[in-house]
Amino acid sequence: MRIAPSILAADFANLENEVKDVEPYVDLLHIDVMDGHFVPNITMGPNVVQALKPKTQCELDVHLMIEHPDRYIPDFIKAGSDMISVHVESCPHLHRTIQLIKQAGVKAGVVLNPATPVESIKTILPDVDFVLIMTVNPGFGGQSFIESMLEKIKEVKSIIDAKGLDVKIEVDGGINPETLQKCKEAGASIFVAGSAIFNHEDRKAAIEQLRGA
Amino acid sequence: MRIAPSILAADFANLENEVKDVEPYVDLLHIDVMDGHFVPNITMGPNVVQALKPKTQCELDVHLMIEHPDRYIPDFIKAGSDMISVHVESCPHLHRTIQLIKQAGVKAGVVLNPATPVESIKTILPDVDFVLIMTVNPGFGGQSFIESMLEKIKEVKSIIDAKGLDVKIEVDGGINPETLQKCKEAGASIFVAGSAIFNHEDRKAAIEQLRGA
Amino acid sequence: MRIAPSILAADFANLENEVKDVEPYVDLLHIDVMDGHFVPNITMGPNVVQALKPKTQCELDVHLMIEHPDRYIPDFIKAGSDMISVHVESCPHLHRTIQLIKQAGVKAGVVLNPATPVESIKTILPDVDFVLIMTVNPGFGGQSFIESMLEKIKEVKSIIDAKGLDVKIEVDGGINPETLQKCKEAGASIFVAGSAIFNHEDRKAAIEQLRGA
Amino acid sequence: MRIAPSILAADFANLENEVKDVEPYVDLLHIDVMDGHFVPNITMGPNVVQALKPKTQCELDVHLMIEHPDRYIPDFIKAGSDMISVHVESCPHLHRTIQLIKQAGVKAGVVLNPATPVESIKTILPDVDFVLIMTVNPGFGGQSFIESMLEKIKEVKSIIDAKGLDVKIEVDGGINPETLQKCKEAGASIFVAGSAIFNHEDRKAAIEQLRGA
Amino acid sequence: MRIAPSILAADFANLENEVKDVEPYVDLLHIDVMDGHFVPNITMGPNVVQALKPKTQCELDVHLMIEHPDRYIPDFIKAGSDMISVHVESCPHLHRTIQLIKQAGVKAGVVLNPATPVESIKTILPDVDFVLIMTVNPGFGGQSFIESMLEKIKEVKSIIDAKGLDVKIEVDGGINPETLQKCKEAGASIFVAGSAIFNHEDRKAAIEQLRGA
Amino acid sequence: MRIAPSILAADFANLENEVKDVEPYVDLLHIDVMDGHFVPNITMGPNVVQALKPKTQCELDVHLMIEHPDRYIPDFIKAGSDMISVHVESCPHLHRTIQLIKQAGVKAGVVLNPATPVESIKTILPDVDFVLIMTVNPGFGGQSFIESMLEKIKEVKSIIDAKGLDVKIEVDGGINPETLQKCKEAGASIFVAGSAIFNHEDRKAAIEQLRGA
Repeated sequence: MRIAPSILAADFANLENEVKDVEPYVDLLHIDVMDGHFVPNITMGPNVVQALKPKTQCELDVHLMIEHPDRYIPDFIKAGSDMISVHVESCPHLHRTIQLIKQAGVKAGVVLNPATPVESIKTILPDVDFVLIMTVNPGFGGQSFIESMLEKIKEVKSIIDAKGLDVKIEVDGGINPETLQKCKEAGASIFVAGSAIFNHEDRKAAIEQLRGA
Repeated sequence: MRIAPSILAADFANLENEVKDVEPYVDLLHIDVMDGHFVPNITMGPNVVQALKPKTQCELDVHLMIEHPDRYIPDFIKAGSDMISVHVESCPHLHRTIQLIKQAGVKAGVVLNPATPVESIKTILPDVDFVLIMTVNPGFGGQSFIESMLEKIKEVKSIIDAKGLDVKIEVDGGINPETLQKCKEAGASIFVAGSAIFNHEDRKAAIEQLRGA
Repeated sequence: MRIAPSILAADFANLENEVKDVEPYVDLLHIDVMDGHFVPNITMGPNVVQALKPKTQCELDVHLMIEHPDRYIPDFIKAGSDMISVHVESCPHLHRTIQLIKQAGVKAGVVLNPATPVESIKTILPDVDFVLIMTVNPGFGGQSFIESMLEKIKEVKSIIDAKGLDVKIEVDGGINPETLQKCKEAGASIFVAGSAIFNHEDRKAAIEQLRGA
Repeated sequence: MRIAPSILAADFANLENEVKDVEPYVDLLHIDVMDGHFVPNITMGPNVVQALKPKTQCELDVHLMIEHPDRYIPDFIKAGSDMISVHVESCPHLHRTIQLIKQAGVKAGVVLNPATPVESIKTILPDVDFVLIMTVNPGFGGQSFIESMLEKIKEVKSIIDAKGLDVKIEVDGGINPETLQKCKEAGASIFVAGSAIFNHEDRKAAIEQLRGA
Repeated sequence: MRIAPSILAADFANLENEVKDVEPYVDLLHIDVMDGHFVPNITMGPNVVQALKPKTQCELDVHLMIEHPDRYIPDFIKAGSDMISVHVESCPHLHRTIQLIKQAGVKAGVVLNPATPVESIKTILPDVDFVLIMTVNPGFGGQSFIESMLEKIKEVKSIIDAKGLDVKIEVDGGINPETLQKCKEAGASIFVAGSAIFNHEDRKAAIEQLRGA
Repeated sequence: MRIAPSILAADFANLENEVKDVEPYVDLLHIDVMDGHFVPNITMGPNVVQALKPKTQCELDVHLMIEHPDRYIPDFIKAGSDMISVHVESCPHLHRTIQLIKQAGVKAGVVLNPATPVESIKTILPDVDFVLIMTVNPGFGGQSFIESMLEKIKEVKSIIDAKGLDVKIEVDGGINPETLQKCKEAGASIFVAGSAIFNHEDRKAAIEQLRGA
């Protein structure tokens, strides 16, 4: 099980400190890139990846909520991304996009919005390193977990198992100790958590609770 | 004369510290918002304005390098912006956009790209609080000052004076002690500086040099 | 069985009279909103919903054939819509869009173009109040019914039944007494009819014929 | 002097009656077409022009607030438009667009948004039949007249006179008896009025007041 | 089995000669139209179809890698196309687009990008004359065959057979004697080949090798 | 005086022969690149420049009638372009675009559509090598010369002379011996001609007539 604190929920004026605060307990950081076109919010770009890279040992997991991600993937790779995921809804040439990420030695993921059916990723599944299943609609932090996504996680998990693939399932949105446990049982193994970690005074306790300790 | 350090050139993992470092010497911070559509880079959004607002006494000067700025101006106002500027090249309904900013009690500016002629802002000039004349092409830090922009500054200044308007001229791009002095003589009074300040070990000295002390 | 006269086929200079003419026989009016971008025609907006609302007891069933429907759904809700449907082909964030409609207490529907497979709505189905299956290509009135859509209606109906959902099926395009009967047998229960009603002198007779009386 | 009642302010459920009500006093009707892309509202399309054409002797003056107007101009011509105007801000190939209108024997106009400078239409001016100067930002009825537009009217008028052109000036937005008089003195001769006419019980009186009787 | 040499790989300064060189051995030419928007390359338009039409007896198979293909299909039909295919990823109104082609007596095909699942064409399949399965990502010649596409060919073939449809399967990308044989066994019967033919000195030999002679 | 035959009017199946036919009499070839988005036609891309480069001694003058030209300029440079021009109407960051061309040692031009005023290029003028003044609306060959463009040529010429710049004026559209002479007198020195050359049996005679011999 990997917990990925989402820095969108951290104090953006002190990212290094925030990262230092969680780093003893996690090995992954989630970075929410929004362009104001694919989603109704603008957040951060390659500059943030570049700024964090030398400050942390955690892997950087970059979630691109942008149109035409191919245009910016080289910048995010150069900035130090370890994992990059793109939305099936914004990639008409998804196979090319995934190869562009993988050819740089970066782990590639495909993301599904809540209403997007599993069929849409059936063909690309063997080519990706992970699937990110949105458990809220992307754009903002602090939303409530959509329960019906558990069924989708199970459906993706069963395809992965049936095909014998080495593909991880990540979930993002409304993750707290309770919803994490459900997602884990459904087949997820990477859990993005924002407010559940950074809104806590005691980040260690928050992460331990998520881990079900 | 106002110097506006551009936080795009600061250490993005430690914005509060960076701001504290320059705050004794300036009263304005420049915030470069890019959406990856109007300009070929993605940088930051309302989240950064909101994070800095409670940490500084400086005014926050938000430069929107985005398409359809009307859609995000309310978010930037709510986040605590004191000045917001929009590009004439991305605003077909520029008068509405400027009013949207001003009606919230925020100072409104119009920005011209290097190749954009002064005629394009002739009609809106009496409605804005400031004009931002780009002295490099927007999108990235660290570019060289375009000398021919001095002529444009003079041209805008002479219209402002002829009409007796209370409109400030801001410049952004390649500003160092030498180019600042030229822009000042041409009529500018607000000077954005990024690498000239944040690439210096001694920010106080850097700002003093810019001020021509 | 509900018949929904489509006012796009009515005399647009006398909508109130046209509505009064059909109101004794129906409880629903269909309003075709086109933006000239999603479909190759421009028709009407919230102004028409607002004008009709106080003049009729019928529910107003607004079919949004527009790009980025989220931007206009609040206007259509405020204008008095009772049902709002959006196209799966124009909604990358379909779950958010459907929630936006439902949170206002308005019934939410998802629309499928003739070539769009049923798989595309599989995940959102439990969240909607109705599915609108286009039986012609949207954009213009007076087109011929596409027979192969009967199979699609049956397929949606069987999923609804299998999951025990309370989701209605609406059909739109080329509906006349004969095609209506076929659609009804396939599982539809709301029938949009334009020219079949408003091109008739005797609207009562036209509607009765549709009802199979 | 021509007064053009804007039907956007009329009762949209009874356009024929509304038109009959003003027809004795005017010879022109203004039709505001909005696509929800160029302006933040959707209103009506060729269907409304077609519906009104056989019901009135007035000329139909169609104001296209849409992107890519070339795609819909043939439909608006076929529907019965007598005058069609397009925005300089949405027409990169403005000369082609104007010719497309004129070749059908329809009068062609170019529209300027409030912030758009007169220079932008300098080259096309000899080719148009009229210039529509927006005195509010297009998109909605009921806004207040922007006083500084009087200067723009004068500027356009002086170019027309200097070149000896037969080009009319139309104004639209916030027109009431007082602002109409000012616009007339500045050089306008066609006056669009919406709420000033249709919000009045007595349309005859409202129009007479506008005419300064 | 039909081999369709792709003229994108031919000497573009001597297309007639290139065509004459292959014409004795084939009855089909593949024409790759790219607009720089749907794919990251610009290549050719109706002008090339029109230039080749009177010079060859081969059928012209036009593959539209463009956005909004409906806008240009009439031009390609008029220029002399015998087959036209459009991408499911760029056609929200795919049924209309396919009918537009077929109503002119031209054979209509639907194209799937490598990551696009077969489900996406399930509904339109009975309406098309052929399915083009991309075996590389469209945009450039000379790429390597994606092996996993063989599974997709088989899947489409089995649906065609199960429904008893008369629909051909075409493949495009990385086709050489070896990959052609595999695709043929999987169910394809039309094979686009570019560099495998035009990079050979002896085109006859190249085509014979492809045919497995 | 330079005559630039436009290969869009040549036999596209035999470009090398067509070029050989005119090469003894000219030193420049005009290449019309259209993407179907900026203009309503699709024509050719870098592949044509690359094909012609080794076949001719003429300079290749590439006219980009495309949106977002920055994305394709590197490809056109690599293909062998000697001159590249971009439209002021499609370049919000025109200074960057012009520098991108010039930094590769390629001559850079700015193009004005017929309705675009000279003011729009006032600021960029000192940075370009040439100005291309469209004397028809771009998109198709064979259109008639717009007489009022002579005034625009004179206006640009007078600014060039007043500033002492080394900037050439090119004209394109409806050029025949008569209109060429007028343009020359107005200040142009590069003349694009399509049908006037390639529709002639005797290209030598056609070019001589254009030269006024």
